[in-house]
Amino acid sequence: MKKIVSLALAGLAATFVLPASAQFAKPEDAIKYRKNALFVMQQNFGRVAGMAAGKVPFDAKVAAESAAVADYVGKLPWAGFGPGTDKGDTKAKPEIWTNKAKFDEAAGKLQTEMGKLAAVAKTGKLDDIKVAVNAVGGACKSCHDDFRAK
Amino acid sequence: MKKIVSLALAGLAATFVLPASAQFAKPEDAIKYRKNALFVMQQNFGRVAGMAAGKVPFDAKVAAESAAVADYVGKLPWAGFGPGTDKGDTKAKPEIWTNKAKFDEAAGKLQTEMGKLAAVAKTGKLDDIKVAVNAVGGACKSCHDDFRAK
Repeated sequence: MKKIVSLALAGLAATFVLPASAQFAKPEDAIKYRKNALFVMQQNFGRVAGMAAGKVPFDAKVAAESAAVADYVGKLPWAGFGPGTDKGDTKAKPEIWTNKAKFDEAAGKLQTEMGKLAAVAKTGKLDDIKVAVNAVGGACKSCHDDFRAK
Repeated sequence: MKKIVSLALAGLAATFVLPASAQFAKPEDAIKYRKNALFVMQQNFGRVAGMAAGKVPFDAKVAAESAAVADYVGKLPWAGFGPGTDKGDTKAKPEIWTNKAKFDEAAGKLQTEMGKLAAVAKTGKLDDIKVAVNAVGGACKSCHDDFRAK
């Protein structure tokens, strides 16, 4: 048990400083955190998008659950874009930090649209889900176009 | 927009089959999903564990938020351990699938203890948080000992 807790604590005393709510031991952890959270979000969103596109059978319960997870997890990656996390194993463009207001707006747009998707997914209305999926897809693409290197 | 949605859909028509609630396009996606979700969980748990150990200053609000995220995200990885996901970039031992009842119990134990941590973290009582952190750490270690290769 002590070993596990020690592992969890490894590096926490490092001098890399972010707001307390987004404390990571190392910039690499922050980068990995945002990528991992985005992947978990994308897998859940992708499942709903697959149903919206008719690629997989529509299952209202699974769509609602997956959209809810995508909505929750979609709020997490942004803490990983703190100062000092621009270099490393990342496709993040410098504009994220040089034009932070625009980036925050784009991140907010994604979260807003994902929230709408989670809400309509609860209703089980596939036509509404399709509209919301497209809006989320648009928010993804817009942010990637501006802030993610190819 | 279409391109993004297409990307999200890539491979969803593949024949890799899991229960609808855990549909992944490829076994690699399932493996990445569980690893990514566990990392996001660990980062949030580790922050609370750091406070419990006195390695970082105790911030009740951050502890409560981080424990809540760890609790939510700690429910996600298990969908990624479906049939056919035993081979690949993973330290998962075969026992996960050959002794599934024991693995499910260990995964359940982690979720139970993380739920308790999230509950006590809301109270802001550091002594109770310490006890709950140790119980979560024990659940992590026990499962890793039995089901994760070194």
